[in-house]
Amino acid sequence: MKTSDEKIYLSEKDIPRSWYNVAADLPFELAPPMNPATKKPLDPKDLEPIFPKSLIRQELSRERWIDIPDEIREIYKIWRPSPLKRAVRLEKALKTPARIYYKDESLSPPGSHKANTAIAQVYYNKKEGVNRICTETGAGQWGSALSHACSIFGLKCTVYMVKVSFEQKPHRKSLMHIWGAEVFASPSEHTRVGREILKKHPHTPGSLGIAISEAVEDAATHDDAKYSLGSVLNHVLLHQSVIGLETKKQLKMIGEKPDVLVGCVGGGSNFAGLVFPFVKDKLKGAKIDFVAVEPTACPTMTAGPFCYDYGDTAKLTPLLKMYTLGHSFIPPGIHAGGLRYHGCAPLVSALIDKKIIRPVSVSQTGIFSSAILFAKAEGHLPAPETAHAIHAGIQEALVAREQKKAKCIVINYSGHGHFDLTAYDNYLSGNLKDFHYPKEMIEEALKELKGLGV
Amino acid sequence: MKTSDEKIYLSEKDIPRSWYNVAADLPFELAPPMNPATKKPLDPKDLEPIFPKSLIRQELSRERWIDIPDEIREIYKIWRPSPLKRAVRLEKALKTPARIYYKDESLSPPGSHKANTAIAQVYYNKKEGVNRICTETGAGQWGSALSHACSIFGLKCTVYMVKVSFEQKPHRKSLMHIWGAEVFASPSEHTRVGREILKKHPHTPGSLGIAISEAVEDAATHDDAKYSLGSVLNHVLLHQSVIGLETKKQLKMIGEKPDVLVGCVGGGSNFAGLVFPFVKDKLKGAKIDFVAVEPTACPTMTAGPFCYDYGDTAKLTPLLKMYTLGHSFIPPGIHAGGLRYHGCAPLVSALIDKKIIRPVSVSQTGIFSSAILFAKAEGHLPAPETAHAIHAGIQEALVAREQKKAKCIVINYSGHGHFDLTAYDNYLSGNLKDFHYPKEMIEEALKELKGLGV
Repeated sequence: MKTSDEKIYLSEKDIPRSWYNVAADLPFELAPPMNPATKKPLDPKDLEPIFPKSLIRQELSRERWIDIPDEIREIYKIWRPSPLKRAVRLEKALKTPARIYYKDESLSPPGSHKANTAIAQVYYNKKEGVNRICTETGAGQWGSALSHACSIFGLKCTVYMVKVSFEQKPHRKSLMHIWGAEVFASPSEHTRVGREILKKHPHTPGSLGIAISEAVEDAATHDDAKYSLGSVLNHVLLHQSVIGLETKKQLKMIGEKPDVLVGCVGGGSNFAGLVFPFVKDKLKGAKIDFVAVEPTACPTMTAGPFCYDYGDTAKLTPLLKMYTLGHSFIPPGIHAGGLRYHGCAPLVSALIDKKIIRPVSVSQTGIFSSAILFAKAEGHLPAPETAHAIHAGIQEALVAREQKKAKCIVINYSGHGHFDLTAYDNYLSGNLKDFHYPKEMIEEALKELKGLGV
Repeated sequence: MKTSDEKIYLSEKDIPRSWYNVAADLPFELAPPMNPATKKPLDPKDLEPIFPKSLIRQELSRERWIDIPDEIREIYKIWRPSPLKRAVRLEKALKTPARIYYKDESLSPPGSHKANTAIAQVYYNKKEGVNRICTETGAGQWGSALSHACSIFGLKCTVYMVKVSFEQKPHRKSLMHIWGAEVFASPSEHTRVGREILKKHPHTPGSLGIAISEAVEDAATHDDAKYSLGSVLNHVLLHQSVIGLETKKQLKMIGEKPDVLVGCVGGGSNFAGLVFPFVKDKLKGAKIDFVAVEPTACPTMTAGPFCYDYGDTAKLTPLLKMYTLGHSFIPPGIHAGGLRYHGCAPLVSALIDKKIIRPVSVSQTGIFSSAILFAKAEGHLPAPETAHAIHAGIQEALVAREQKKAKCIVINYSGHGHFDLTAYDNYLSGNLKDFHYPKEMIEEALKELKGLGV
């Protein structure tokens, strides 16, 4: 089947039947997660207080394909398979010979790729008798995705939302309420960790690190509750592989082979979702450039070392080998809240270390100017996170113009910007600042890593 | 082709090649628009200061099919054909034997059906050399659709936005800015009418009537500018016929015949867009119930008389024969801003008068409870306007359950609610009031109609 349509749809029977696990195909060993107390490789049992067993098995699995249960595929049908769209008007505006495609993950109910793993995680939690799931959220992308998934499967959902976002970005909080979640401003009075921080710093704006600690404590101290994370971990990246698997089928349908795949990286899950199903092709010799895009304000992949670090500020999580700016690094308050993470998924990090993935960093004003160009040409308004991928994709299309090469560029359109209009207002009124490589801050934060002893 | 998918897609070649004009198929005469000065049928020339000639021709046309230019079909491809979706999870939640479908018009860049006519109107204006288009907007659905269309075709766009919305609902204003429009809080200092009102009432919150007067004055007093309206008029309803034409093809593809078609009515254009292509079938004997849904707070179709009235408060527009609450009627401040219009499209009104369309009115708290049920079952969050149609559709599905009839119900999902979360917050916190049939207000407003002399 071949189509000349600019929106490439698949049928619902084309929703993948298995997730793809890139770990099965890597020609090198992955560094194991370490127990933070013993500094020895983690025992799966260590994770059982906070995760259901089926997700722990997925986290450590080396199986290439893992079946997607029918119940999950049924829910995926709400927005999957997602369309691959050709950005014909953007190509014209750029006068590029490149063909630009974007995989539209913004059509899920919460408006981003996060729904792909939220549905899966809640399903497995429900199957193992969990009644309530706790999580943290910054700007609210992940919190709203998990709330939606809990609403679908009838589980309770508790979200610790970074206080400054809770107060300043009320709309994703409203979404969570609509889907029935309880949302606390973090730090809160509901956990020991929250109360202690409030006692010392009653006016703190909160942080993702604090919110993670509260959600983990809540889950670990209640028998019927578990914890859920929206990125970084292997099982989260696994669930996102539906993005790349569908994209591969769609490109084949129209006779395309990709030259460049682009995604933004916060924890790394949407990027991995698009790219991992193509890694084997590259290992076998296909010339594909995998471009991982981060903000200059939080240059984890382009300025951090590749070493063991904690996933959270409070040092509660296992130690993971990854690119990191140090668990105490606090990035400036840029508008792409989803990209303000000090670390990067171990699987993505390992592939950067092996030069299979190419990281780049881009500035905040640059990504908004590209986002507005995209919104004028293609109509749709990207989330600031997604705008990082669009910006880098546009750069690639301009390089192709210089080189007079008709490259095929695929961008992961990870989410829409309907709840981010304050950020656009700031940009249009000239109030946005660029933050570049804050060297001293990073050096300060990295010092701590040296004492970890792994 | 038959599909068991719950999302029914068409190919881009299925985007209609002609708009359907229901006026060609009506077995009765339509009352003509009247010149407000002479009280005699309008001369098309009277409209030339504010509309381009091609749109005036469409307004008065009795041709059944009017070609859609290729340039417009190219832009429609951004989001058309729009999917028809089966609401399988809502059906389950309602335990109804009915099959519920919704036509998803929320996928356009501005997020509603308004884009269908905005693109067409701007195209014809550009073709006739217009440089700038002026319009009014309440909550901003129409203003953002016109801004997007002007951005696509490179025209300037001036939007007079009702002051209270300008201040309290900033996000659709941000969208307009992103697409390059200039947006004034109305009443403004930019028009004579605005200045006069500000002198008398410096603290007025503004109204749609005032904003229309400002936009019309701006267009009429500048040679390079024209005016544009987002609903009510025949040519606007014509452009919306793509909705029903596609729906018809989609239903046929899956072997369905509709028993009930439901849409919300403010000016009437999204409702007409879905329903009009099915009117001929009903005239020939098909049993289809056309349900037009309005708020009890502005019960134009269910409580107003069918008579001549002005389209705006300032009496600048031609007189139209329609269901109306009187041009001085000011509806309460409900959250479905798009349904707070005193009148109703003459074509829709005539079909109500002939009992071909059945109007119903529903309460504000009812529509939000249905919207949340929908968001939990189907994931997607409807605009408060759209929630009126969903609420009535749900009522029909419950009737079908009582009757044990497997009815086919089709709802027009006219727009998403991503910019309406404050309204949902109000509902969830119990702060929403219901307004029912404000009899005295309506009687007061209707008095003026008696003196019109038509």
